[in-house]
Amino acid sequence: MKALRFDGELKLVCDAPIPRREGETLIQVIAAGICNTDLEITKGYAGFRGTLGHEFVGRVVESGDSSLVGQRVVGEINVGCGECQLCKEGDARHCPTRTVLGIKGRDGAFAEFLSLPVGNLKAVPRSVSDETAVFVEPLAAALNILEQVSITPSSDVVIVGDGKLAQLIVLALAQTGSSISVIGRHDEKLDLAERLGAGCVLRESAATGPEWNGRFDVAIEASGAPSGLGTALRVVKPRGTVVLKSTHHGETRVDTSRVVVNEVTIVGSRCGRFAPAIDLLKRERIDLNPLISRRLPLEEGLLAFQEAAAPGTMKVILQVLERVP
Amino acid sequence: MKALRFDGELKLVCDAPIPRREGETLIQVIAAGICNTDLEITKGYAGFRGTLGHEFVGRVVESGDSSLVGQRVVGEINVGCGECQLCKEGDARHCPTRTVLGIKGRDGAFAEFLSLPVGNLKAVPRSVSDETAVFVEPLAAALNILEQVSITPSSDVVIVGDGKLAQLIVLALAQTGSSISVIGRHDEKLDLAERLGAGCVLRESAATGPEWNGRFDVAIEASGAPSGLGTALRVVKPRGTVVLKSTHHGETRVDTSRVVVNEVTIVGSRCGRFAPAIDLLKRERIDLNPLISRRLPLEEGLLAFQEAAAPGTMKVILQVLERVP
Repeated sequence: MKALRFDGELKLVCDAPIPRREGETLIQVIAAGICNTDLEITKGYAGFRGTLGHEFVGRVVESGDSSLVGQRVVGEINVGCGECQLCKEGDARHCPTRTVLGIKGRDGAFAEFLSLPVGNLKAVPRSVSDETAVFVEPLAAALNILEQVSITPSSDVVIVGDGKLAQLIVLALAQTGSSISVIGRHDEKLDLAERLGAGCVLRESAATGPEWNGRFDVAIEASGAPSGLGTALRVVKPRGTVVLKSTHHGETRVDTSRVVVNEVTIVGSRCGRFAPAIDLLKRERIDLNPLISRRLPLEEGLLAFQEAAAPGTMKVILQVLERVP
Repeated sequence: MKALRFDGELKLVCDAPIPRREGETLIQVIAAGICNTDLEITKGYAGFRGTLGHEFVGRVVESGDSSLVGQRVVGEINVGCGECQLCKEGDARHCPTRTVLGIKGRDGAFAEFLSLPVGNLKAVPRSVSDETAVFVEPLAAALNILEQVSITPSSDVVIVGDGKLAQLIVLALAQTGSSISVIGRHDEKLDLAERLGAGCVLRESAATGPEWNGRFDVAIEASGAPSGLGTALRVVKPRGTVVLKSTHHGETRVDTSRVVVNEVTIVGSRCGRFAPAIDLLKRERIDLNPLISRRLPLEEGLLAFQEAAAPGTMKVILQVLERVP
């Protein structure tokens, strides 16, 4: 099958074996999204080698659970060992020997087929389109913040970043009734954040004055840039909370004394449960089209990665399953 | 009066004015302790210029509250504006325009006299010696952890560092019944930690194997070294808590992706309330002598700083008030 693989270099191959794993379900990929983490992996993040991609929608073609065959599904990306304490507590996301779709020890979704255990799969409601379903994984990651940090209608929250994950966080926060500000670098993305629910948007260069210091109860770093954490630590109140969403290759320079002196709490936040994300997309019928910059077939995967890495690009969707015209 | 001042260089001066501040109380310093923060200030931390020192015990000589005159006191180091929202909520520690004794906008305790508002002062019980009272400020900072993070008898806690603050944290944690481990660099300090209540002590070089990864519920970084945070992030469990106590000059390189992927919470922790520290010292009659490396008169302040900065040194006490022999 065709697959977009990374072995120190990103390559489109045509002869990748179909990934049948014992006891798992085989899924034909319909579409997949390129995430910032995919770009970071091509810079060396996580040391991954194999087929990239972890945001997808597909159709079940082979499964031990025959009722699933033919269903349109999305899939949680972490596969635990099933036997350690964390797995037994239902937290496969942090199993120390887990594999992670397209990130760690498991081929991913930028291919014609992928394999996942039945337990990772969630059916996609008919009212949710293929392209919208590709956003379930990152939207779940955005909604995960609400399970980690108390955000109420009286909370004053700022998101540092205006990219695709930041926009999904705006959508997630819009459910809480909290005050939402966004600090970004691109006028058109800030406009989009405003349409999605942000009450105040401003360019990073306009948020440097002392009047912005220590202003927000919660600052969510979703810029994808190492500098975002410094901004978040600057604008959050003493005893406030910084949520850290971005993963980068390499280390970030942090003024840890500021964390100590202001007694800030930093909460690392990664993946989330899929069910709330699917529910939200079904209930609100949110139009995610404005978050998509480009659609390209899998065969154009290398170009798609170039596009995804270009400044200002939002989500690039790989259309894997050819449509009958 | 004599004072140990920093103006880009540490100097002992003999002609510093007695620091009378309107509406405040004048205290004759009996003894003061040199803290790692003092050493960091001489490297440029906090940009402070003036008389150093914030751990002290003294005797009230002039006060609007005449009942205080003659009393032996310790003093909370943050002085808020009294008018901002934080001050009104009783949190002068985070007032944005606060002064901090010997750290920010206010001359400190390495001098014959210092000034603080009445509200900052706490009487020292007779059963607590002068030298023990000098530890109230750092012990309060150690106990503050218990107000920020839930630590129970079932918690498995590690302290990274074996210096004076780390030892006080052992004492604080010993109140909780939790399992306490200490990762340090000095055999004699690790022995002391064991005597103070640590159930497991080990050298940093012995804690590098994979069996130490993700092992502790809570990791408290009190090493005073930038490398301590990396160790804490390595040994803490996924979804665990890292408490950050050290303040350094400059930035620290942090693998923020590890924070995100393991969904670790980092809690910055600085000063604490004095009352619980005084209560503990009074109730337990803890012998803090093993934490004192050297006692020197204020006149030997430059030497005292050299000693305090030497590897392996614990607390250096400046005896400010000469005793009648």
